[in-house]
Amino acid sequence: MVKDAKTGECYRADHLLKAHLKQLMSDEKCSAETVAGLEDVITQMDNYTQQELADLFVKYNVKSPSTGNDLTPPTSFNLMFQTSIGPGGNMTGYLRPETAQGMFLNFKRLLEFNQGKLPFGAAQIGNSFRNEISPRSGLIRVREFTMAEIEHFVDPSEKNHPKFSNVADLDILLFSSKAQTSGQSAQIVRLGDAVEQGVINNSVLGYFIGRIYLYLIKVGLSKDKVRFRQHMENEMAHYACDCWDAESKTSYGWIEIVGCADRACYDLSCHSKATKFEPNKGAIGTSYKKDAKLVLEFLAGCDECYIADQEKLLTGKGEFSIETQGRTFEVTKDMVSVKRFQKTLHVEEIVPNVIEPSFGIGRIMHSIFEHSFRKREGDEQRTYFSFPATVAPYKCSILPLSQNQEFTPFVQQLSDAMTKNNVSFKVDDSSGSIGRRYARSDEIGVAFGITVDFDTVNKTPQTATLRDRDSMRQIRAEVAELPAMVRDLSNGTLTWVEVEKKFPIFEGQETSSKKE
Amino acid sequence: MVKDAKTGECYRADHLLKAHLKQLMSDEKCSAETVAGLEDVITQMDNYTQQELADLFVKYNVKSPSTGNDLTPPTSFNLMFQTSIGPGGNMTGYLRPETAQGMFLNFKRLLEFNQGKLPFGAAQIGNSFRNEISPRSGLIRVREFTMAEIEHFVDPSEKNHPKFSNVADLDILLFSSKAQTSGQSAQIVRLGDAVEQGVINNSVLGYFIGRIYLYLIKVGLSKDKVRFRQHMENEMAHYACDCWDAESKTSYGWIEIVGCADRACYDLSCHSKATKFEPNKGAIGTSYKKDAKLVLEFLAGCDECYIADQEKLLTGKGEFSIETQGRTFEVTKDMVSVKRFQKTLHVEEIVPNVIEPSFGIGRIMHSIFEHSFRKREGDEQRTYFSFPATVAPYKCSILPLSQNQEFTPFVQQLSDAMTKNNVSFKVDDSSGSIGRRYARSDEIGVAFGITVDFDTVNKTPQTATLRDRDSMRQIRAEVAELPAMVRDLSNGTLTWVEVEKKFPIFEGQETSSKKE
Repeated sequence: MVKDAKTGECYRADHLLKAHLKQLMSDEKCSAETVAGLEDVITQMDNYTQQELADLFVKYNVKSPSTGNDLTPPTSFNLMFQTSIGPGGNMTGYLRPETAQGMFLNFKRLLEFNQGKLPFGAAQIGNSFRNEISPRSGLIRVREFTMAEIEHFVDPSEKNHPKFSNVADLDILLFSSKAQTSGQSAQIVRLGDAVEQGVINNSVLGYFIGRIYLYLIKVGLSKDKVRFRQHMENEMAHYACDCWDAESKTSYGWIEIVGCADRACYDLSCHSKATKFEPNKGAIGTSYKKDAKLVLEFLAGCDECYIADQEKLLTGKGEFSIETQGRTFEVTKDMVSVKRFQKTLHVEEIVPNVIEPSFGIGRIMHSIFEHSFRKREGDEQRTYFSFPATVAPYKCSILPLSQNQEFTPFVQQLSDAMTKNNVSFKVDDSSGSIGRRYARSDEIGVAFGITVDFDTVNKTPQTATLRDRDSMRQIRAEVAELPAMVRDLSNGTLTWVEVEKKFPIFEGQETSSKKE
Repeated sequence: MVKDAKTGECYRADHLLKAHLKQLMSDEKCSAETVAGLEDVITQMDNYTQQELADLFVKYNVKSPSTGNDLTPPTSFNLMFQTSIGPGGNMTGYLRPETAQGMFLNFKRLLEFNQGKLPFGAAQIGNSFRNEISPRSGLIRVREFTMAEIEHFVDPSEKNHPKFSNVADLDILLFSSKAQTSGQSAQIVRLGDAVEQGVINNSVLGYFIGRIYLYLIKVGLSKDKVRFRQHMENEMAHYACDCWDAESKTSYGWIEIVGCADRACYDLSCHSKATKFEPNKGAIGTSYKKDAKLVLEFLAGCDECYIADQEKLLTGKGEFSIETQGRTFEVTKDMVSVKRFQKTLHVEEIVPNVIEPSFGIGRIMHSIFEHSFRKREGDEQRTYFSFPATVAPYKCSILPLSQNQEFTPFVQQLSDAMTKNNVSFKVDDSSGSIGRRYARSDEIGVAFGITVDFDTVNKTPQTATLRDRDSMRQIRAEVAELPAMVRDLSNGTLTWVEVEKKFPIFEGQETSSKKE
C-alpha cells in the first residue's frame, strides 16, 4: 500500500505501479526495448520485495493519480478483515479470503467418502472477504464476493483424464506464456493439440479448461470474448506447476474470471526429499543481535517445500526475506545453507496432486451482462439481454393482449401450470401496447413470451402464441402444451428450431402493435 | 453477558437465567404458583433492563453452571462482529446480523419491478454473523449461519391472500399465546379456522404459515414434530403485530427454525398520527447535568413509532431508558411528555405492511437429520436416513452385483444417462456384498439404488433392478428407462407406488445377500 503524502488517500502499490507503467508503454515515443523492459517489470510484479517496490516507485517517478502529490513508500497491508471472536475480546479472527480451505481441512473425510480412492473431486461455493484498498468497477473488485471452487485430487502417476476426449476437439483461444513473452497474440488452438504439444501441462488440467470453457459459453459469454491466459513462470503462485486464467473481454479490458491451477509439482517435489535449513548462528547473531532468536526459530520451523523455494532465491539473488511476528528479516547466503539428507521410507507416501478451478461468480455475472447486451437492428432505443434461457432469471412472460377481462382465466391457468412445471415467469397485464410490453420483457432478458389473444378465447382448441426473444419469431400452440414446452426450452432439452418445425409460425400481434 | 467471577468464563445472561429457572421449575417440590411466577419471568425475559436482570440473578441466586462460582453483574455485549474497512483503519464496519436489510434498502426499486403495485414479495438467502457468547449444539447456535428471508409487502387495507384457500384445509399444530399463558398445550387446528377465529391475525400471515408448513414437511420434517408457536405480547419485537415461530422437536427440545412475523401495526399506527416528545428541560438538566444535552438531542430525534412505544412504558412503569453514544439514561415521567398535533396530509400515504418469514437453514437441516434418522426393524445396527428424494444429496446408487468386468459397460451407460438427466448419483463398485453396499447407501440417505446383475448382461431386453430405500422393495425395468424414472421420482412427478404398479416386483438380490 502507498499513501498520498498530503491527502492520505491509499492505493494498492502493485496496481498503481502497473497502471503507471502501462501508461508509459502506451506512449508512441516509447521504444520497443523500453516497452519490453516495462513489461518485464509488470510480469515480475508479484515477486518484488517491499524495498524493490519502493525503488521502482522512485525510478519511474510514480505520483498520486488523483492529485499528482508525492506518495509514501510502500507499506505492507493485510487484505484480510480482522475481527474479534467471542465475549472475551482477545480471540482474533479473520474473515476467509477464499473458500477452498474447508475442502483441504476435510481431505481425510472426503477421501473416505470416495472409499479411499483417487481421483475424486469436491466443490464449494461461498462468500469470501478481502479488504480491497480501492474497490471499484462494479462487481469486478469488491470487498465481499461469491466464489466457487473445485478441488480435483488426482494420483500424480495417473495424470490422464478418462473423459478428456469429450473436450479434446474444442477450439479455444489460448494465450500461452510463450506467446506473451515473445509478443505474439492469443491463438485459437484445438484443446487436444495444446495438451499433446505440452502447451497445457496435462490432460486433467486440459479437461477442466475445456469444461470451464463450455460452462462459460453455456451461461452466455461470447466465444470471441473468452480466452485462457497462461501464468508466466514468475507470476505463478509458489504452489502451482501450471496455471491458466479464463479471461473475459469487458469494458474494463480483459479480466480474470476463473483461475485454473494445477497445484502439482509443489507438494510432490517437496515430499520426495528431506531437507532442512542449516543456520550459521554467528552470522545471524552479528546481523540481528537480540532478534537472532526469532530468525533461528523461524528457520527451524520451515517445511521442506518452503525451503526448496527459498533455496532458489538464495542461489539466484543470494538472499530471501522472512516474515515473523509481524517483522521482516533478510536472510543472506552467509547466514544459512540447505542440508540434504536421506530419508528412509517404510511406506510409499503419495501426495495427491490437485487441480483447482476457482470461479469469481460476480465477475462471471458482470461478463454475462456485458456479452449479452444487444440492440435491435434499426432501433437503437430498443435494447435487450440475450441471456440463455438456462440462466435467464425469468424464463417466460405471460401477456394478455389487452386488459379485457376475458383473458384473465387463461393467464391464471398458464400461471398455475408454470408454477407446477417449476418455470419462473412474470405476468405483465399493465395497460401498455403488446409491442411495448414485449420490449419491456426483452429489456430484462426474459427468454420467451406467451400472449393470450382473442383467438385464445374464441376458437377451439384454445391456443396462444409463444415468442422467442432473440429472433422475435412466434408460433401458435395449444395453451395446455405451452408450459411444458417452455420448461423444456429452458432446460435445454428442446430448441427453438425444433419448436418452429412442429408448430405454425404466427405473425399477427407484433405487426399490428407496430402501428401503434 | 455475565462472567464467572473467578475463571472469567462468559455466559449469555438471558439464556443462563432461563436455564436456571427451568431447572427450578422441574423440581417436584415447586408449587404451581411458583412455577407460574417463574414462567412469567421467562416470558418477560426480553423486556428486562440491565438492572432488573441483575436483581433477578441475585434473587434466584444464579451461579456459574460449570464451577458454581459467583457471577459478575450483567453487562451489555454487542452480538455483531466489528471490523475495520478500507486501508485507513478508521472506518468501522459490522458483519450483518441478518440478511433482510438489503430488501428494505432496495424497496423503491423492487416496487418499480412490480410496476408500482402491491402486493409483491422478494426473497434473499445469505450468510449472517452473530458473535454468540457460547456457541453450541451443533448447527443450532453458531457464529456464522445461512439464513433465507422473504419480505412480502402488502397494502394494509387489502390484507387478504387470494391463494389462502389453497392452504386453509391444512391441520397444523398451533401453540397460541393464549394457550401458553393459560397453561394449555398446543392443539391441532385447521388453518382456515385459526384465521377465522382471529387466532392468526390475517389470511396473508396464515398463507405464509401454511406454505412454511408445507415446505418443512416436503424437505423431510415429521408432521408430529413441527408446531407453530405464537409470540407472547411482551415477547414480540417492537415492530410486529403478530408473530409465529415454526418450531421443530429435536434432542435439544423444541427449537425455533423459522420465524414468521407480520410487521404490520408498527409502521401503520405510527404514521397515521403525528407525535413528538415535549421535554422538561429543567428536570433533565437537574438529573443529568452536562449530559442533559445528549438526552435532549436524542429525544428530539425520535421517530413517531419509537415515541409510541416509549409512551406505553411511561404510562406503565413511569419511565423508559434510552441509549445514546454508548451510554444509558433513564427518562422518567417528570422529564418528558408526549405531544400530539394534527398533521395535514396533501397526499394519501400508504405504508405497506410486510410479512416476513425468516428461515434458519442450518437449524432446518439439523431437524431434517434428526427427523429422518431411522433404524431397520429387527436390526438396531442398520441405520439409515429417510431423506425425501427431493433433498437427498444423492438420488441414486449404481451398484454392479460383483466386480465382474461384464457389468462395467452398463454402469458406464447408466452413469452417463444420469448426468444427462441431472440426477446426482454414486457408483459403489467396491468389493462388499450387495447387501452391505445397499446398507452403506441407505446409511447416507441415497433415495434409490440400481443394481446391474447377470440378467442385465445375459437377457434381452437388458434390464436392471431399482430399489426404494425406505421400503427396500425392488422392481425390474429396462436399463434405458431407469435414469428418467429416477429423475421423475426425485422431482416428485412420479411416486414409488406408481412405479410398482407398472413394473414387476423383484425379490432376488437382497434375499441372497442375507445368506452372506
